[in-house]
Amino acid sequence: MLFARTRRLWAACLIAAGLAAGLASGAAAWQIEPIAQGFDTPWAVEQLPEGGYLVTERDGRLLYVDGATRHAISGVPRVAARGQGGLLDVTLPRDFETSREVLLTYSKPQRGGGAGTALAVGELSADNKRLLRVRDLFESVPASKGGRHFGSRVVEAADGTLFVTMGDRGDGETAQDRTTHNGSILRISRDGSIPDDNPFIGQNNIRPEIWSYGHRNPQGAGLDAQGTLWTAEHGARGGDEVNRIVKGSNYGWPVISYGRHYSGAKIGEGTAKPGMSQPEFYWDPSIAPSGLLVHSGTNAPDWKGNIFVGSLKFDYIARLGGAPLAELEQIKTEETLRVRDLIETPDGSILFLSVSQGTLYRLAP
Amino acid sequence: MLFARTRRLWAACLIAAGLAAGLASGAAAWQIEPIAQGFDTPWAVEQLPEGGYLVTERDGRLLYVDGATRHAISGVPRVAARGQGGLLDVTLPRDFETSREVLLTYSKPQRGGGAGTALAVGELSADNKRLLRVRDLFESVPASKGGRHFGSRVVEAADGTLFVTMGDRGDGETAQDRTTHNGSILRISRDGSIPDDNPFIGQNNIRPEIWSYGHRNPQGAGLDAQGTLWTAEHGARGGDEVNRIVKGSNYGWPVISYGRHYSGAKIGEGTAKPGMSQPEFYWDPSIAPSGLLVHSGTNAPDWKGNIFVGSLKFDYIARLGGAPLAELEQIKTEETLRVRDLIETPDGSILFLSVSQGTLYRLAP
Repeated sequence: MLFARTRRLWAACLIAAGLAAGLASGAAAWQIEPIAQGFDTPWAVEQLPEGGYLVTERDGRLLYVDGATRHAISGVPRVAARGQGGLLDVTLPRDFETSREVLLTYSKPQRGGGAGTALAVGELSADNKRLLRVRDLFESVPASKGGRHFGSRVVEAADGTLFVTMGDRGDGETAQDRTTHNGSILRISRDGSIPDDNPFIGQNNIRPEIWSYGHRNPQGAGLDAQGTLWTAEHGARGGDEVNRIVKGSNYGWPVISYGRHYSGAKIGEGTAKPGMSQPEFYWDPSIAPSGLLVHSGTNAPDWKGNIFVGSLKFDYIARLGGAPLAELEQIKTEETLRVRDLIETPDGSILFLSVSQGTLYRLAP
Repeated sequence: MLFARTRRLWAACLIAAGLAAGLASGAAAWQIEPIAQGFDTPWAVEQLPEGGYLVTERDGRLLYVDGATRHAISGVPRVAARGQGGLLDVTLPRDFETSREVLLTYSKPQRGGGAGTALAVGELSADNKRLLRVRDLFESVPASKGGRHFGSRVVEAADGTLFVTMGDRGDGETAQDRTTHNGSILRISRDGSIPDDNPFIGQNNIRPEIWSYGHRNPQGAGLDAQGTLWTAEHGARGGDEVNRIVKGSNYGWPVISYGRHYSGAKIGEGTAKPGMSQPEFYWDPSIAPSGLLVHSGTNAPDWKGNIFVGSLKFDYIARLGGAPLAELEQIKTEETLRVRDLIETPDGSILFLSVSQGTLYRLAP
C-alpha cells in the first residue's frame, strides 16, 4: 500500500497548495480543488441541494460529508463486497427535496452464495444520518458467484423512470440472452414496477425490464440535453465504448466488438453486423472508462454537449465532442488518478472521485 | 411495350378468374384479388375512409377510383416528370375525415431548370374531384438537374408530425452534407413549421428539418406499433437496406454500405464505422425495395409486427420478421410485378400497386 500512501501525501500537498490549474493555450481552462479526502475505494458521489455530499465506498458505507462533518449513514443494505461488487452507485432523483429519496445500487447476496445487482431506495432523514424505509426496487437474475461486471449506474430519465446499467457478470453470452438481466440497460419505474412502454413487454422469454442489451459492463451513464442516455462501457481489450442508448437496441456484445479478448483471442464475428448498434466512439487501447456525464454548458459554453468520462486505467478525464465523436482533451493531473465517478453540479462544475487519491475534487470551468 | 401489353392480358385473365391463392404448406395463407387496373406508372395508393381509393401516377395525375367511377382530381401541383421524378407519394392524415387534407410529395420544378422534392397539402372536395387550397409545406434544396433519387414517402408520426424521406439526388456525398436536405429523413409539422424537438435545431450549417441522414434513396416507410419509423432504402449493388430510424442518427451513406457501386467500385470505408448506424437487414443481390409497411396483425396474427416490402426488381413482396430480422417469405405471383407501394387497410388486408400490371391489388390474409 506504499503506492497509495504516497498518493495520499501528494494529495495532501495539493490540498495545501489549494488547487491545480489547467492550462490550455497558455490560459487556465479549468481549475481543480479538493473537496474532501480520506475515502476508501469511493464509487459514486452526489451533491445534496442544501449542501454537503453523499459518497459511497465500495465496501458498503454511504457517507455524508460537509466540511468538517462526516458520518456513515445507517440503514444501507448489506452488500456482497467482493471483487468488483459492493455498494456502488448513489443517485438523487429530481424530487429529492420533497421525497428525500436516495437511490442505491449494490451487489446483493443471493441464495446459494452468489450475488446479483440490486437497486434500492430509502428516505434520508432530516439530519442526514439514517436511511429510512429502505427497500429493493429491483434485483437481477440469475445470481452469479463471479465477482466481475456488476454495472451499475442509475440515472433518472427525463420522464422520471430509472435507467439501471447491468454488466454481463463475466459471462458474455448472457448479454445476448434476454432471459437474464445481465449485459443490459434496464428501465424501471420509481415504485419498482415496469413501465408499460418498455420495448419487450409481453414478449416471451425476455425480461420486461430490458431497455437495451448486448452490453459488457457499462459503468458510466448520463443524459444529454435532449434526454438521450449515453453510456461508457468497459469493453474487451481495445474496445471500450461510448454508446448512445436507443430503446430496444442490441449493442452486440459478445457477437461484435472493436476489441479482442484479453487473451488475444478474436471476439465473435467482427466489428459490425446488421441489426446491432455501433458505438459512437471506442478507445484502443482501452482506458477502463467509469463515470460519464454530458455537460450542460453552464458557465462553460465550450463544454456544452461535451461528454466527460473518467479513466480508471490511464488516470485522466476524457472530454469528447463533435461529430463524429472524438476525444477533444485529456484532463490529466495528479488529482485524476483512477477516476471512478463524475457529476455536474448546478453551477457547471464537475465533481469527481479519484480512487487512488481517495479524494473528492471539484473541476471548475 | 409488348411486354407490358402481355402483362395486362395476364392481369385481365386473373381478374376474370377472380383471385389467386397463396399456398403455404398446402393451405392458402393469403389471397390476391384485383381492385382496379389500367394505371400508368402508379406510385402510391391510399384508401378513403368512406370507400374508394386515391392513386398517384408518376406523370402527374392523382386519380380517384371507386368501382366503375374514376376521374383525375384537379388542383395537383405541376410536377417535373422526368427520370424518377414526378407525382410521388399520397398520404391521408389520421384526421382526414374532418380536415379532408391530402398530402402529396412530388418533384418540383425549381429556378434554373432543376428540381427538388416538395411536400404539398390540399383539401379534397366533398365530391372527390378537386384539391382545394393547395400549398407547399416544404421544398428541398438544392435544386438538381439530375433525375434520380427523389425519395419520397410521407408518413404521419404518432405525434402528428410528418416524416418525409429524401433521396441523395444521385450525389452521394450530399447525404453526409447536412446543409442540404438530400439523403435525409425530415420531420415537419402539419403546418409546415419545424418541430422544436428536432435533433439539430439551432446547430449551425444543419438544415433544421433533418431527423436522420446518410440515406441513399429511401422509398418505403412505415410506423410500427410502437411508433418507430422503418424504411426501405435503395442501396448500391448488394446493399439495399431496411432501417429502423432513430432521431439524429447517421445511416452512413456513402461512407459505409454493404453494397458496391454498380460500376463494381468499392464504396467509402467499408461496412461499418463507429457513430454510423447499421441496417436491420440488407439484400444482396439488391431487390430494388419500394413501399414498406409494418403489419398490425389484424385478422393475421402470424403477421403481427412483420415488415412487408415491395420489390421492383424481382417482382415479389418480401415478408420480414424475427430478431435478427430475416426474410420469412417471398410472396411472388403474376400480380406482384414491380411492386411500388403497399399499405395496410383497417381489416388487415394489404393493398399494393404493380407498376408492370398497372393494377391495384388486395392481398388478404
